[in-house]
Parts: sequence; structure tokens; C-alpha cells
Amino acid sequence: MKLFSFWRSLATFRVRIALNIKGITPDEVIQVNLMKGDQREATYRAVNPMMALPALVPDDGGPALFESLAIIEYLEETHPQPPLLPRSAAERALVRSLALAVACDIHPLGNLRVLNYLRASLHADDQVVNAWAGQWIGLGFAALEERVQHTSGDGLHMFGSSVTVADVCIVPQMYNARRYQVDVAPYPRLRAICARLESLPAFAEAAPEAQPDAP
Amino acid sequence: MKLFSFWRSLATFRVRIALNIKGITPDEVIQVNLMKGDQREATYRAVNPMMALPALVPDDGGPALFESLAIIEYLEETHPQPPLLPRSAAERALVRSLALAVACDIHPLGNLRVLNYLRASLHADDQVVNAWAGQWIGLGFAALEERVQHTSGDGLHMFGSSVTVADVCIVPQMYNARRYQVDVAPYPRLRAICARLESLPAFAEAAPEAQPDAP
Repeated sequence: MKLFSFWRSLATFRVRIALNIKGITPDEVIQVNLMKGDQREATYRAVNPMMALPALVPDDGGPALFESLAIIEYLEETHPQPPLLPRSAAERALVRSLALAVACDIHPLGNLRVLNYLRASLHADDQVVNAWAGQWIGLGFAALEERVQHTSGDGLHMFGSSVTVADVCIVPQMYNARRYQVDVAPYPRLRAICARLESLPAFAEAAPEAQPDAP
Repeated sequence: MKLFSFWRSLATFRVRIALNIKGITPDEVIQVNLMKGDQREATYRAVNPMMALPALVPDDGGPALFESLAIIEYLEETHPQPPLLPRSAAERALVRSLALAVACDIHPLGNLRVLNYLRASLHADDQVVNAWAGQWIGLGFAALEERVQHTSGDGLHMFGSSVTVADVCIVPQMYNARRYQVDVAPYPRLRAICARLESLPAFAEAAPEAQPDAP
């Protein structure tokens, strides 16, 4: 497998965690520097017209796969052990909804291209940008904090008592919340879950600062 | 099944299409008026702390399911025919990535709560709001227009030559693009796909204007 990655891309962070959990080491990791605009270069646009990370080229050399959650479902289907989704359809839906609550309702609003647009077209300064990021993280985290009360089995996982794709999504988002100085004090359950997960090698080794392209 | 719905919610529009394709009629459809703020009332917050639509209560009366794509995966697993995903893992990933390109990269940025925040906190007027909506729809549609060239089998579907979850996502987004007067002329492939899909009963009957709570 070939992974297109950037150390600080949250969506790539998710895929790195999933790869580690599944015990898969990509044959090649290609750095695409989002800060320098590598994603808009013709070379990468030929791989992903969406100009977003990550992209994963499967072992058979077939077309590149995009969108972190689609890639993680692919890994789950091709490398079922250890599972990142529970067995029953209803539980799978609950776990997926916790993951999508991060991937759809929080993360897209804090994306670099969105913050850049706010600065360039709506003349937002740092304070406005941080308030914007904090607004969507706060709303999302408040809802998740309430939900995990019912879904977490042990206070150490988003759902049940083993690692799922919901855990794979919350840890990068918590990293991002800290980066934008969002007050995470009101979310003690999410903090406890993330603190424990971040100590696991699969998560720690996937962290942005642990990547070779981190400054 | 019990569906919480609002006629103009794009995410609910997706679930309505999927239910129609699967031939499932919910026992009850409960209207949650997003314009009046029903989603913030205690009654609905008890169902979904995310205060977002849709929510689906399964037949066994188990906890409500959220996030349109998690609900659609649930429908796919519990009602496999007709399938909304292809068979091979790689093809499933491609279809899911087309769906997520809409659900993560386009739709969240045009959500009502986001546009309201732009107006209230960044003093955006109609022109700025429409430009904002157009910006993300344009970027996303341009990338999808390029991708479907390779993924569509017949120019009438996003992937292959039968309806998938990617089709379920593109039609509501095209509806939304028209609403915000986005110029969709540059996306002839997407327009052809949507024009054909919109003529199918499963899509037509799920359309916002066909719902009982539409004005």
C-alpha cells in the first residue's frame, strides 16, 4: 500500500491510527505538504482531484482511495482483525454515527481551506478564526460528551470497551481542539477517553509530531 | 421504523431516497421544523443531542440512529436488496468516497447553523452567504465532475450503472446548489446524472417539495 500523508492532516491521522491497529505498514508514505500547497500541484491532483488528504493506493495498484472513513471501511473489509466496528447492524450504526459526528459535523468546518477562506474573503483575524473553530468543536463535543455517557462501556472508549472507528476519529479532533486553544474542560468523558487512547502505541505512533515530516 | 424528518433537510432527503429504494415505509414520520428551532427543544434533544436531522428509530425500538450515512449503512446491512454498495472492497471504498466527498467536503459548510453563524457573528449578508455556499459546492462539484468521468459506467450514475449511495448523496446536493443559485453549467456530467436520477420515483418522492410538511 502507498499512503499520501501530511503530518498535521487530521484525516490522515485517522488513517494512520487504523493502519497501526490493523498492523499494516504501508510500503511507501508520500508526504504532501498542505502548507506549501503540494495538494494543488498537478502530480497530486492526478491522484486526488479533491486536492485533499489522505489517499491510499491499495496493494493491487488499483485506483487510489480517498476520504478517511471510506479508506478505514476498506481496511476493515480487507483486514477484519482486530475489528474497528462491532457486529450487530444497530451497534455498527451507532459507532459509525459517532465517527461521522466528528468527520461531518466538526472536522470540515475547521479545515485549513475553510479557515483560509475566512481570512481571505471575510477578513477574519486570529481571534475570529479561533472562535469559529471553537464554536463547532464545542457544539460537537458537547453532544458527544452526552452521547458517550450511554455508548461507552468503560469510560475509556467511545463505544463499548474496545477500540472502534469512533475512537479513531475523536483523538485527532481532540488534538485539533488543543491546537485552537478550545476549552475542553467541559468534556471530562471525552478527555478521559482520549487520554487513555493517546497512551496506546497505535495512537501515539500515528500522532502528528511523531511523523517524519513534522518540523 | 420511525423517521424524524424536515422537508428541506438534505441529510434527511438522502435517507428518504434510501428508504424508498429499499422499499421501506416508516411507520411514523415525525416532523422537526428546523426553521422554527424544533431541533433545539428538549423533546428532540433527548432523541439526538446533536440537534441535527435525521434520526431513525429501528423496528426493535432500540436507540435512535443518527447521521445519514450511518443510517444508510444500517439500511444496507439490514435490507441488502437492492444493494446501494457494490461487492468488492475497493469498489465499495470508491462509492463511499464519492458519497463522503458530498457529506464531508460540501454539505457541512452549507448547513443552516453555519450560514446563521456567518450572518450573526461575521455579519455576512445574502451575497456573502451565497458566495460562501457557492465556493464549497463549486470546489466539490469540480472534483466530482472529474472523478465521475472514470467512475460512472453509463453517464447516468455516479458509479457503475446502478444506483449507489453516491447517487443518494449527489441529488440532494444538486438541489441545494440550485437553491443557492450556484452556476452548475460547468458540471455537465453531474447534471446529466442528477436529471436522470431525479426522474426515478424513489428520488422524486423523496424530494423536499413532495413532503407533507413542505409549505
